[in-house]
Amino acid sequence: MTIKDIAEKSGVSVSTVSRVLNDHPDVSEANRARVMAVVRELHYVPNSSARDLVRPQPDAIGLVVRGVGNPFYTAVIRAIEQAVRAAGYTLVLHQIHTEDNEVPAAASLARAKKLRGLILLGGCFDYTPERIAALDVPFVCCSFTNSFGTLERTAYSSVSIDDQAEARRAVAHLIERGHRRIAILLDSTCDHSISQLRYRGYCQALEEAGIPLDRELVEETSDFDMAAAYSGTARLLKRRPDLTGLFAISDSMAVAAMKALHDGGKRVPEDCSVIAIDGIDISAYMIPTLTTLIQPQEELGEKAVRLLLDLIEGTGENRQLRLQAALREGGSVRAV
Amino acid sequence: MTIKDIAEKSGVSVSTVSRVLNDHPDVSEANRARVMAVVRELHYVPNSSARDLVRPQPDAIGLVVRGVGNPFYTAVIRAIEQAVRAAGYTLVLHQIHTEDNEVPAAASLARAKKLRGLILLGGCFDYTPERIAALDVPFVCCSFTNSFGTLERTAYSSVSIDDQAEARRAVAHLIERGHRRIAILLDSTCDHSISQLRYRGYCQALEEAGIPLDRELVEETSDFDMAAAYSGTARLLKRRPDLTGLFAISDSMAVAAMKALHDGGKRVPEDCSVIAIDGIDISAYMIPTLTTLIQPQEELGEKAVRLLLDLIEGTGENRQLRLQAALREGGSVRAV
Repeated sequence: MTIKDIAEKSGVSVSTVSRVLNDHPDVSEANRARVMAVVRELHYVPNSSARDLVRPQPDAIGLVVRGVGNPFYTAVIRAIEQAVRAAGYTLVLHQIHTEDNEVPAAASLARAKKLRGLILLGGCFDYTPERIAALDVPFVCCSFTNSFGTLERTAYSSVSIDDQAEARRAVAHLIERGHRRIAILLDSTCDHSISQLRYRGYCQALEEAGIPLDRELVEETSDFDMAAAYSGTARLLKRRPDLTGLFAISDSMAVAAMKALHDGGKRVPEDCSVIAIDGIDISAYMIPTLTTLIQPQEELGEKAVRLLLDLIEGTGENRQLRLQAALREGGSVRAV
Repeated sequence: MTIKDIAEKSGVSVSTVSRVLNDHPDVSEANRARVMAVVRELHYVPNSSARDLVRPQPDAIGLVVRGVGNPFYTAVIRAIEQAVRAAGYTLVLHQIHTEDNEVPAAASLARAKKLRGLILLGGCFDYTPERIAALDVPFVCCSFTNSFGTLERTAYSSVSIDDQAEARRAVAHLIERGHRRIAILLDSTCDHSISQLRYRGYCQALEEAGIPLDRELVEETSDFDMAAAYSGTARLLKRRPDLTGLFAISDSMAVAAMKALHDGGKRVPEDCSVIAIDGIDISAYMIPTLTTLIQPQEELGEKAVRLLLDLIEGTGENRQLRLQAALREGGSVRAV
């Protein structure tokens, strides 16, 4: 049985049958119903089915988001979804918690959904060849890269800012304005991840300015959420009320820190300057406006999709892209 | 050719072949590769293919999000994704702009992806039978319902708060604290949508208190984003510097309004009280903490999935669920 038989029996043209079978939008409801009734009646299986069974689905790309509810990801996810759709693919979304491991999650998603490729939004910076062996489709790390891992540069793709360099720049911004007792609010100093890279940038800026590292000014919250950032800042303030500057490794942590500083009787920026990295929309509406290094969220998403499509379609190799953050000077930093 | 032939030729058991063909996780990589090589070689097509062609995919549910970047949706999407996954389905995400129409978008997604059902997160409140005729799978409206439409109650499912009643409650909260010159910051008074419903609640509260509606205190921004809310509040303040209270129809609009009030020389709450509806995480970290009616975001997502699964699996009928918002008293409202 061929597509011609279907066309004949349903009284429409061959091209209409083809459009129906390929889910083309440009076909009337009546014709679609007529064709599908015949397909159903005759149990017609198009030629491509045998191939479809063993090939990946032609159009599905997986997005594994690690760190549900991170507001920084909102604009990145939006950009990824739009770029994937514009390229004619479908996005399958899978969100996991920060403490979960994205690699097995991605590998099992790719297999179960026969994905063509994967974008990992948030993840570990320390992949090994053994660890990623389970990923048998192309993948792109978005917003992070393999800084602590052992992968060859030909073995993975990523698009991210240079976390260490941007953190150094943020802290240097405070140092240039006369600050010496600068605290850092972060998840962990040794997570082999974004937190550790930004901590390195903090240490580097201090060292370059000849300021000794003071462990009491390092507040590890063990969590990226605002509640943890709030209570961490409160502890920090109790321990070192003499701090004059604070570098929070994310905008949302900075927002919570500003609240904790306020509740602890410190004015921003009169008593304590605050700077961060991210540039989520809402940070422009804080009072005072948060001074931050804005990550190019749309560009991160678009470039990740572009890299992945090049890998899927064989038009590009694995690459690691670095994007620049842009300083927004708000009102949360002053010279001392 | 049968599954037995595949098993024989690949040297594994029939049940292993079955597990491979059904994407069961419990199969070794080596066996999977071996079976798929034979499947590929023999162009084997399992019996179910003829049915798969005309039946929906067994596991895909679509989520159409109208209003990309709305921070209120973040926690709802997370809850939906987790509930869909827990039930063994896959979520296909599709985001559209506020000005786009979710019904044709959802209908074409459902057809192209052979979805089992749809969740519409954000959308119009005025569906007609003609308009939803294109939706040939079960659907659930999440965070909105058919307040302005003509659908029979048996023709759609929804889970939402009672927008009018909650808006009335927010405005009454200000009136009870002595406010009379209360402005409203909203998208539109006549959008046949959430904005209009919350405007009705505002008018109702004023009317019940015997306060005449003053059109100068109604600020329509034509947009939900923070930039529009900021400039709208600035215009409002110029027109009516005597206002003492402001009801913003969303938390993010309230955050932008607080910034505009501050920049316009008004202190919150000393010069102007602010109240909103939503309860996004970050609004608890504003200075002062935003007083708002918190929507149960997780519950909205979970209930929407439950309703949809009941429809898909034939264990439930179309229903309209109403959830309650919870007042969080922050520091943005004071008695006058």
